[in-house]
Amino acid sequence: MNSFKFELIHQSKRSRARVGRIHTPHGIIDTPNFVAVGTNATLKALDSQTVDDLGLQLMFCNTYHLMLQPGTETIKNAGGLHRFINRNAPIITDSGGFQVFSLAYGTVKDELKSRGQKKQDGSVLKITEEGVLFRSYRNGDSILLTPETSIAAQKDLGADIIIPFDELPPYHIDQKVLTESLHRTHRWEKRSLDAHLADRQNQAMYAVIHGGVSQELRTMSCDYLTQLPFDGFAIGGSFGKTREQMIEMLSHTLPQLPTDKPNHLLGIADLNSLEPGIQLGIDTFDSSHPTRCARHGLAFTKKGFVKLLNSANKEDFNPIEPGCTCLTCTKFCRAYIHHLFKAKEMTAYSLTSIHNVHRMIELMREYRQAIMLDEL
Amino acid sequence: MNSFKFELIHQSKRSRARVGRIHTPHGIIDTPNFVAVGTNATLKALDSQTVDDLGLQLMFCNTYHLMLQPGTETIKNAGGLHRFINRNAPIITDSGGFQVFSLAYGTVKDELKSRGQKKQDGSVLKITEEGVLFRSYRNGDSILLTPETSIAAQKDLGADIIIPFDELPPYHIDQKVLTESLHRTHRWEKRSLDAHLADRQNQAMYAVIHGGVSQELRTMSCDYLTQLPFDGFAIGGSFGKTREQMIEMLSHTLPQLPTDKPNHLLGIADLNSLEPGIQLGIDTFDSSHPTRCARHGLAFTKKGFVKLLNSANKEDFNPIEPGCTCLTCTKFCRAYIHHLFKAKEMTAYSLTSIHNVHRMIELMREYRQAIMLDEL
Repeated sequence: MNSFKFELIHQSKRSRARVGRIHTPHGIIDTPNFVAVGTNATLKALDSQTVDDLGLQLMFCNTYHLMLQPGTETIKNAGGLHRFINRNAPIITDSGGFQVFSLAYGTVKDELKSRGQKKQDGSVLKITEEGVLFRSYRNGDSILLTPETSIAAQKDLGADIIIPFDELPPYHIDQKVLTESLHRTHRWEKRSLDAHLADRQNQAMYAVIHGGVSQELRTMSCDYLTQLPFDGFAIGGSFGKTREQMIEMLSHTLPQLPTDKPNHLLGIADLNSLEPGIQLGIDTFDSSHPTRCARHGLAFTKKGFVKLLNSANKEDFNPIEPGCTCLTCTKFCRAYIHHLFKAKEMTAYSLTSIHNVHRMIELMREYRQAIMLDEL
Repeated sequence: MNSFKFELIHQSKRSRARVGRIHTPHGIIDTPNFVAVGTNATLKALDSQTVDDLGLQLMFCNTYHLMLQPGTETIKNAGGLHRFINRNAPIITDSGGFQVFSLAYGTVKDELKSRGQKKQDGSVLKITEEGVLFRSYRNGDSILLTPETSIAAQKDLGADIIIPFDELPPYHIDQKVLTESLHRTHRWEKRSLDAHLADRQNQAMYAVIHGGVSQELRTMSCDYLTQLPFDGFAIGGSFGKTREQMIEMLSHTLPQLPTDKPNHLLGIADLNSLEPGIQLGIDTFDSSHPTRCARHGLAFTKKGFVKLLNSANKEDFNPIEPGCTCLTCTKFCRAYIHHLFKAKEMTAYSLTSIHNVHRMIELMREYRQAIMLDEL
């Protein structure tokens, strides 16, 4: 059974931007849309009820973290992730590969900064054709992550959309090594797909297009992966050092993806990347940026960031954004939230996260409207 | 204008326990009741909307903390504490004295443990007939807290119920020094009352009965303070080292208070003290205990504490308390909350705080029912 379906509603006449609707077993995702990240099966500082009230259509959870805590077996015993966290709307999980390879090569940011000097911290014990052996940061256990174990974990979790196991090669890498990595990733993705199709369980699987900033390799990846029966396509791997490099890569890659399937940009949803991404035809964007900013006192408004800790807000009794319909703006003023940040009250993080997630959801609704009117 | 009124609904035939109703400018407080503490103008890990939804009838805010951050002037400019935090239900503030004297003598717990050896940390610079000069922990400013400045601050805050400035003498104190302290406290309370009555602003003021564990001094305090036109009576000062000492003190003191005015037990609302306190005729109890316990993973149930971090909850897919109608219990299972604590997610603190505050509110409702039926 596969109740996953992508419906194209409108293709803009002015760009590759499009409005669509992804049907999943747990409901609809209107696209383009923002996907909030709840690494540990919760958006930080928010509960599922609040997230439901916000109308978040797709939530991203991290398999790597959930494998280590509480363990995917526990979530399976709960009846899956939706029941465990009491969410009756779509969820996407990743393969765990991203986090494991971040341990090996450093985070994307650190690796870019390191000019290729970053060495692994010892958590990744061995990378073979079989998969990756790594050490749990929680209890020191050795864990083997392979295409098959990643998919088994994602079957336990039961998200609506799952991701095949892939390698995240660093930006600073020899073209020859990157090509070898790409081929291995393709073999891993094929094994992941086979493991998935052997027990589909009404989940959809998106391939992950790799190839770093090499146009040749991106084309090779599109050629190979679009031949396989994936339900959608995520763009992964290194996007380069700058937004311009990323946009160049996306401009090259997206026209090579089938237009009758949804696509997803992995880990990017900052405000400056959204519009070019949408114009290039991206359907969904995930990022922890809006909630992380919120916890640092950065609120999103139509006019840009507001630094809530800034003393200009001390006696500003207006909401973060006048006219905003989120709980935070309809109930609380900037001065109060400023005070809560100064007093280091967790309530500050919750209230600002509510606003930022609401703003992202509204922003994407505005983009969809603009596309419908061929204004984008 | 004074819209504050205490209405006695039922006096138990079996004890001094009574059911009442306190009318305030921002609504009714059914008594006996639990008063949650929101030191910095928020219950920790919760927002005012959630607290409203819980039905919390009286919230306790600390003048000392709000003087230092954001400053009572800012809250006055916001239109008072109710508007600042968007709460349309009763609030009580203290005088700031408790915190200042905790700086001088150590917290109640530390001071009891210290056997009188605890010395002040240097924050309190001078105690005179005028008041207390202390140093702000936030910016090092010298601040003079007197009956008049405390009341002025509480006028800025605009709570429904305010507290006169008093001294909190330590448990380990010479009877002669305690007697001198009591007389000074009485003079300070009278000055506070005068300052309050000169500009009532529809606030009510509760006196604070002092005298430590000395029956003679408690009687003296009741005699003096009940002659003054206070709207109610709080029991403060040292309650002794044990619950038995506290109950002995309350048994002695409460019959000396007028039954046509409400009373309040300052800082005590642990589950073991509530029932004896209610039986002795206490109307309201404030404590940060239920929310502090929540943040440490201790959930309150009818059968006692549940340690949510305990591994017994790892795969317990039942709510904290089956049948409980709080948001947390109707939506989430123990296994999920256990996981959130293990993953150090703030959501764990919020969900458990919601449950514990709900439980306290329900427990007090149960006590009121029992009193109505003369079962307590």
